[in-house]
Amino acid sequence: MPEGTLPAIKTLALIGAGLIGGSLALALRARLPDLQVRVFDLVETHSRAAVQLGIATQACGDPASAVRGADLVVLAAPVGALPALFATLRPHLADHAIVTDVGSTKANVLVAARQELGSAFSRFVPGHPISGAERSGPSAAQPDLFRGRRVVLTPVVETDASALARVTQVWESTGASVFLLEAAQHDAVFASVSHLPHLLSFALVDELAARPDAALLFSYAAGGFRDFTRIAASHPDMWRDIALDNRDALLAELDAYLGAVQTLRDRVAAGDGPALHACFDRARVARLRWAEGGA
Amino acid sequence: MPEGTLPAIKTLALIGAGLIGGSLALALRARLPDLQVRVFDLVETHSRAAVQLGIATQACGDPASAVRGADLVVLAAPVGALPALFATLRPHLADHAIVTDVGSTKANVLVAARQELGSAFSRFVPGHPISGAERSGPSAAQPDLFRGRRVVLTPVVETDASALARVTQVWESTGASVFLLEAAQHDAVFASVSHLPHLLSFALVDELAARPDAALLFSYAAGGFRDFTRIAASHPDMWRDIALDNRDALLAELDAYLGAVQTLRDRVAAGDGPALHACFDRARVARLRWAEGGA
Repeated sequence: MPEGTLPAIKTLALIGAGLIGGSLALALRARLPDLQVRVFDLVETHSRAAVQLGIATQACGDPASAVRGADLVVLAAPVGALPALFATLRPHLADHAIVTDVGSTKANVLVAARQELGSAFSRFVPGHPISGAERSGPSAAQPDLFRGRRVVLTPVVETDASALARVTQVWESTGASVFLLEAAQHDAVFASVSHLPHLLSFALVDELAARPDAALLFSYAAGGFRDFTRIAASHPDMWRDIALDNRDALLAELDAYLGAVQTLRDRVAAGDGPALHACFDRARVARLRWAEGGA
Repeated sequence: MPEGTLPAIKTLALIGAGLIGGSLALALRARLPDLQVRVFDLVETHSRAAVQLGIATQACGDPASAVRGADLVVLAAPVGALPALFATLRPHLADHAIVTDVGSTKANVLVAARQELGSAFSRFVPGHPISGAERSGPSAAQPDLFRGRRVVLTPVVETDASALARVTQVWESTGASVFLLEAAQHDAVFASVSHLPHLLSFALVDELAARPDAALLFSYAAGGFRDFTRIAASHPDMWRDIALDNRDALLAELDAYLGAVQTLRDRVAAGDGPALHACFDRARVARLRWAEGGA
């Protein structure tokens, strides 16, 4: 669907005014000047900031009043908050309301949605825009955050086709490309290329920061460290929820990685230069090929 | 010493025309238009490219002819090549020649230099500019690579004070700041903030690239993966040598890190949200503080 096609939405309910939700609302408002955006964020200052920043047209004191009558409900809260939100919002959803989320895990979100949304479940379209950043909060939101990015939707057999088409249209209007994956596959893919690196980066910084000579160490840290640890500045609430929610896939990744690092450690201990070189060379070739792919 | 003070060098011998050596020569030639730079690189096309790119004034067919009569000899080869270079070059060094290197490890380089350089050892100043990049080769060289960066020198008790002053002046003239560390401390510091992250990044990409579904995984990799793995495109020869040369310090770092990731894995398995949050939050605070420090 071309970016030019505008989704027919009059009222958007935005639950969570962080980087992702805020950026989506900014992108939609830029295309739909008459769009009403009602925002609710657990942090009240975030709701008010969202209005001041032009993310929303109205701040609501509770999630129920934000969704009442809304055509589209976007749940942009940490995944750990979604089960309770589904239950809270269910009685207040309009009959035609389409519900979507932006969570980084999908299988457990679907379980909770199926359990809590009742007849509204068919109009729930699970989503995940691939555009995280280490910044967070409404002030980090920007209307072009999704331009050229991927958004993964993980519909199930019950998912209403027109709801899926509408959510697809919403994301494409922000300049993103929409891809469909099965939820379990989504969770496995992102455990390897996103959740694992985040945990590894957190672990490195936490381990170094706890040392008595941490200040000396950090004073000599340079560009490699900077890039490797950029994601260690990510939001702890969000990443705790992701780690808990995608536990099984993440454990499989952690175990595979621990095995790979143990092998590398043994090769360093054995002074096995050819094996180390082969590993580094394979990684370099794969990394360069990936970068050349325009990712 | 202010950047404005020019080092009194007429002839520089550059052994290794890669990113670091090439950038140093470009920086010096920008300040010293009459400087003669004789280059030798094992890869003959690199020697010729260095002349074409303005890094060097003359390409030499062997390292001995490059250093003959030179005031300053810069060894900018992977650390694994340094012992043989010290032995090869020793008979050809001018009596007044100052020798320095740019290797990422220092203790073993000092051992080799002490063993091979004989009476010239007092004029050897071990050095390490903190300015790596995943790019390599003469075409990656740039004259401002060291501006605002740190250079660590690790002199020993035998090191001639005027040689140390001259190498300090050379680096300061490129816009870098010079710091002195004891070699063993240098190696421990860089094992944690540089060598370990490089190996961890190589290990992740190599592990993922070996999977049957690697293409699918990479297709969904985004910004976090990009930054975490940028250093996995680094030069395999250089990093094999570093891993072998700094083995003991690196093994200590790998073991500490494996322990930290194992702990994190156990917390994910136990579903221990508060412990995960505490780890992520400590890492985030430390990472933000480091970034604010202007590193």
